[in-house]
This record gives sequence, structure tokens and C-alpha cells, in this order.
Amino acid sequence: MEQSAIPRLLGVDFGGTKMAIGVGDADGRLLVSERLPTHAEQGAQQALTRALDRARELVARTGGTLVAAGIASPGVVHDHDIELAPNVPGWEQLRLADAVRAHLGLTSVRVSNDLNAAAYAELRLGALRGIDPGLVIGIGTGVAAAVTVGGEVMAGFHGAAGEIAYGLTDHSWPAGLEPMLETTFSGRALDELAQRLGLTGQAAALCTAAAQPGRARDELRQRVDELARQLVTCCLLLDPQRIVLVGSVAGNEVVRELLIERLTHALPYRPDIVLSAFAQDAALLGSLAMAMEALPAPV
Amino acid sequence: MEQSAIPRLLGVDFGGTKMAIGVGDADGRLLVSERLPTHAEQGAQQALTRALDRARELVARTGGTLVAAGIASPGVVHDHDIELAPNVPGWEQLRLADAVRAHLGLTSVRVSNDLNAAAYAELRLGALRGIDPGLVIGIGTGVAAAVTVGGEVMAGFHGAAGEIAYGLTDHSWPAGLEPMLETTFSGRALDELAQRLGLTGQAAALCTAAAQPGRARDELRQRVDELARQLVTCCLLLDPQRIVLVGSVAGNEVVRELLIERLTHALPYRPDIVLSAFAQDAALLGSLAMAMEALPAPV
Repeated sequence: MEQSAIPRLLGVDFGGTKMAIGVGDADGRLLVSERLPTHAEQGAQQALTRALDRARELVARTGGTLVAAGIASPGVVHDHDIELAPNVPGWEQLRLADAVRAHLGLTSVRVSNDLNAAAYAELRLGALRGIDPGLVIGIGTGVAAAVTVGGEVMAGFHGAAGEIAYGLTDHSWPAGLEPMLETTFSGRALDELAQRLGLTGQAAALCTAAAQPGRARDELRQRVDELARQLVTCCLLLDPQRIVLVGSVAGNEVVRELLIERLTHALPYRPDIVLSAFAQDAALLGSLAMAMEALPAPV
Repeated sequence: MEQSAIPRLLGVDFGGTKMAIGVGDADGRLLVSERLPTHAEQGAQQALTRALDRARELVARTGGTLVAAGIASPGVVHDHDIELAPNVPGWEQLRLADAVRAHLGLTSVRVSNDLNAAAYAELRLGALRGIDPGLVIGIGTGVAAAVTVGGEVMAGFHGAAGEIAYGLTDHSWPAGLEPMLETTFSGRALDELAQRLGLTGQAAALCTAAAQPGRARDELRQRVDELARQLVTCCLLLDPQRIVLVGSVAGNEVVRELLIERLTHALPYRPDIVLSAFAQDAALLGSLAMAMEALPAPV
């Protein structure tokens, strides 16, 4: 079968729980997407291989040729290693850009932190168009942030801007480096809390129970407060025009209501606080936009 | 007496305790400077009048003509009002830029937040040249920050970036808007702590006593910890290449040692942490640089 010459872009958003794969046209419009479980406990290599094999199938299904890929991953993502991404064993040792190039036979590959990819999508297509400065808060399996200034996503000096998971959450000092905020408030932390409270259905069940007064609500409020405390400091520092919330936990109405109540109370200048219009797809759409930018400029 | 045509620039740094006045040449080089007490309790107008009268005398002493002024002030500084500057009664009602223009008969006047002016001096002349991103932390009468990104000082959407004084410092939520961090850790807060511990000589005496193990050190450490906690979040968010400390309290070695110890411990990527080379003059030098930029571009 002769391969079509219609150019296609690939975006992949690797997460600690799920991997999203999307194929777009040359203008970055999403044509088809799919979600696969990461099976983090089985390690990084199998997840990467499964995602890229499936990506190849999806590209074929759209009847085109892959010309560029954008890959989003948790952690501090460099071309040749990834730091602060402990949720998938082996992930930090991946030479992600090279592995994708080799597996797909592509040269135009760009890699980025997942929240930075989400912020990029918000800047180009979403709630941060024309907004400056902007702050993206992602609450999924983990917790992280991204900052936009002057229409760009801030990388930070080590490429580590936004790694708020390591924020300190109580009045003891940790013995060493410890993601105290993420241990307290994230999808994973709320899953554990739900289990401790005897709820079936993990974080989602906890949030449902917390819609009514009672222990679930009190406990969830305490957890949200830890994030709110950190976000007060972030907002004081940046004075953002708007905060965009992304990720599965951020999508919950009770969580947002508790968070907004606290921020409203404690900030002298309150930013807009909105939920991303992209549901779970902000980082995926950002990856597609990155793929577009990874292409060599037309001569 | 005929007035000389040699152009002179004026910089003024208004503080809650002291006002610094400096006259520079057309290239922004400081020729002469002086410090006056603010006498905050006597209100804003007398402070402004005294400072500007003295400024006029200093300009005359240098044998030149004033062509532009840069004015730094605590708070969120707009041309026509100042917000979040409660330390000097009446200050928030000042139309600062207009008052300076009228008093000095000048059109080229620029006003700015004092920490932003200090950051501007560090970017142009000091420890933030070639550094990106940069973070300036000022600990004088109050406490505040400034952020530099891509060679510019971040203003924030409401002009309020860096107002970290309102950070939350314990696990209760304030009843309303409250500068909890500043109440806990600032020159004024340490003055009060020194008094409570029966020390004569205010914050400076407390820091001297804290060089040795004992109650003064324990209490100072607790206070520094509150700032350190907030700075951990700030550093995680921005991933700055360097932090520059400015202000009288930041100049103290014991304070710096306690602060650096905490940040080193809790951050995955530690920025350089340096003391401003400008001692108390960072905001004053920044004001002079602002005065230079307030001049119309040469035709």
C-alpha cells in the first residue's frame, strides 16, 4: 500500500495514570485521539513502546504521513533525561526525545513538561490568549504549575519552573527533599484519603461525599487548604491576571469551590480563576502545537 | 546666580523609616546622596515635602539643572495612587507622580514600587546582569519581592507582583486580608520581638544575640522559617537562577545563614543566593536609572 503524503502531527501526553495520544493535521487540529493506561508499575519502557506503536496505528488510520511529534511528560524534561518524575519507574532514565525519534523514524521531535505543554495550549488556543501574566495549576495524579509571561511559558533556569509539588505543608521541616504538597494534595493523595475513609471509588468518591457537610468534606477542605496556602504565595509573587485549572481533580466542582473560597479571602488582588476548556486534553493539544513548531521553517 | 545647564537626574527612595535622595549625572552615575528620617507618624505630606526640598538643595550643590526624576515607594505604585502602603499614614492618597512634577517643575517623572526599582538596578548594574529568571527579596521595615524575567522587572496584572507580605504563615486562616508574613518577619516585626525579649537596640540587637545559641536564636529561626517556607514556594514556581537579598535585615549575616540553610535543604534546584552589592542603595540606584528612562528619547 502506497503511503499518503498528507502530513500528520503527533502529540503524546504521558501521565502517571494515563497516556493520551492524538494525531492532528498540519495546522495542529486534532483529528483523532485515544487514551491508554500507563501501567506505571510495569515501568517506563513498556509504556513508551505501547504509546508509540498505538500512535503509528492512529496515524495510519488518518491516511497520512507522520512529520513531527510533540511529547509531554511529568517532571523536568530535557532532551536527554527527565528529572523529578518518580511516578513511573525508569522514566527518569529515558532519553525521551531520542527514543521517540528512533521508534518513529522522525527528526522533528520536541519534548516538554506536561504542565508547560498545557500552558502552551492555553496561550495559543485557550483561556490564556491575551492574558499576562498567567498561571496554570494542574491537579491530576500529581500537582504542578506553569507560569506564562509575555506570551511565553516560563522554563526557569534549570527547566524546573512550576514544580510546586515540593512545597512545604506543615510546620516541621522535612528531613530531606520531599514532595510534601503532592503527598498532601494530588489525585494520588486523595485516592489514599478516600481509602482511609472507607470510600470506594478513590478521589472521585471522596469529592462526591464532600459535597455534603461531614468528615469527607472536612478532610478534603484541610487538603485543599494546603494547596490554597501555596497558591496565595504564588499569586502574591506573580499577580496573575488569570489562573487556569487543569487535570482530573481540578475538574471537580467541590475542590474548585473550596479553593476559590480560600483564595478570594486571602488575596489583595484576586485573579480570574477558570477551569480549562480542554478537559483532560490541555497537555495533548499543547503537544500537537509543539509538534507544529518542531517542523523546520518552510524555505 | 545663573543656573547651570549641566543636566542632573534625581532619584528618591521613600521608605517607612528612611528616605534616600540621590543626584546623578546624565548617565545615571550617583554624584551625591543623603538619607533623611521619614517620621512616618507625622504623615506622608511632610515626608514628601522635606525630601523634595532637600533634593533641590542637593541638585544645586552639584551645580546643575534637574531634568528628570525617578521615585521609588513601597506598595503598589500607580501614577495617581498607591495601594498596600499602610506604613506611612496618608501615603496611599498621594498622587505621587503629579506631586513630584508640581513641586519640582519637572515633566519627566517616573514612579515605581521600591523593590521593583531595586530589581531594575540589579538588572542594569548589579547581581542580575545576564541572569534569568531573577528574584529579589527585600527585608527592611517590611518584606517584599521582585521578579525579573527576560531582562525585565515583572509588574503583574495589577502592578502588584512581589507583594509577598500577605503570605499566610500559620495553619489558621486570617479573618480578612492580613500581611501575616510581614507581621512575622520584617524589620518592624523583629524590632517588636527584640523588645519582647528585653533587648535594647531593636532588630539589630536581636540578630547580634542570635549569633549565639539561646532563646534569641531560636526565636529568630522560627521567624526566618516563615519567610523560608514562602521562598521555597517562590523558588519552586520560578526556578530562579539567582536570588538577590536587599534591605537592612537581609544584610545581617545570621539571618542570611539561617535562611540559606533552609532553602538549601528543601529545594531540588537551588539558586545562587547573594547579598546586593548596593547595601541600602539598590532602590535609590534603580530610581536614578528610572529617571534616565523618563527622559524623552533624543531626536
